[in-house]
Amino acid sequence: MRIGVLGTGMVGRTIAGALAERGHDVRVGSRTAGDHAVVFADAAAYGEVLFNCTSGGVSLEVLAAAGEENLAGKLLIDVSNPLDGSGGVFTSATESVGEQIQQAFPAARVVKSLNTINCNLMVDPASVPGDHVVFVCGDDEEAKEQARGLLGELGWPAERVIDLGDIAGARAVEHYILLWIRLWRATGGPQFNIAVVTP
Amino acid sequence: MRIGVLGTGMVGRTIAGALAERGHDVRVGSRTAGDHAVVFADAAAYGEVLFNCTSGGVSLEVLAAAGEENLAGKLLIDVSNPLDGSGGVFTSATESVGEQIQQAFPAARVVKSLNTINCNLMVDPASVPGDHVVFVCGDDEEAKEQARGLLGELGWPAERVIDLGDIAGARAVEHYILLWIRLWRATGGPQFNIAVVTP
Repeated sequence: MRIGVLGTGMVGRTIAGALAERGHDVRVGSRTAGDHAVVFADAAAYGEVLFNCTSGGVSLEVLAAAGEENLAGKLLIDVSNPLDGSGGVFTSATESVGEQIQQAFPAARVVKSLNTINCNLMVDPASVPGDHVVFVCGDDEEAKEQARGLLGELGWPAERVIDLGDIAGARAVEHYILLWIRLWRATGGPQFNIAVVTP
Repeated sequence: MRIGVLGTGMVGRTIAGALAERGHDVRVGSRTAGDHAVVFADAAAYGEVLFNCTSGGVSLEVLAAAGEENLAGKLLIDVSNPLDGSGGVFTSATESVGEQIQQAFPAARVVKSLNTINCNLMVDPASVPGDHVVFVCGDDEEAKEQARGLLGELGWPAERVIDLGDIAGARAVEHYILLWIRLWRATGGPQFNIAVVTP
């Protein structure tokens, strides 16, 4: 599958590398084209599926540069977090980057996912033992199913992908990052995740 | 030990009952005295340790009614959540009820804990199998140790009580409630918790 990954930070490079390893044709989008990246609009036009791996604070701007027409009808997996650079988030509890993206680009099929874990764990869940989980949420059920398929390729079995409902669930997973930051300190590093246990 | 529990909702009654079963002398505080409750100030004056089990929206008002002098020097375990009644929270990501309480009552030794789980699970963690966790945070290390002791009596072994640091960690656990509400829907009920897994 042709996949466009927006963002050349650690998250974008890690996801792009993992998808390429699994046989996908990946183009990475950046502000300026370079050795390993094309401009955002070219990556977005190329991909049948897109990953937003940019920082939450610039995601809307990046997606505008990517071009609304290049997002239309496509699964857009939003991995961003609204980090404010000081260990907090810039959104209120009644908003989220995921929702902002869906509102700004209504023809995109936004699925929020993977933002609750370190990028190494995103593409190698087996590196931490146990039935820890990732989340998906979004307004388009087919898009969520497609996202589950890609998550499966990255090593996430279906029973460890929890559907949190509509895109407003992005508030839940983006604000979870406040706990994630504290857990990083408590556990001594970013290589951890949560499992959900029931009776 | 003499314990004052502020709040006669499900959380307050469940915690008060569990602590009484474990041999503590418990008084429950309410707005008006009744068959099973005394007024907030009487419960606060009585307790050597206090639990705030009121809704986050009224906690400051309740604690003012309880009396600053009745909180001074005491461990105050804050179990509240800033629920706005519509499935969201009323705080911004840069504030929390836990911090507001500590700021308003600087002589109290506030430890945020137990707000991340259903009240039945608070006092009976074994009702859900697995190494799921609770959190503590607060500015007073001795108070956190004392809170850990009480959590131990409620069934939480030390290795399942995660210290998130200072009272600003209340932002993390209070905003986690957004995820908790979505997980309730996803798992079909409130009887669940999270475990933290590391390599």
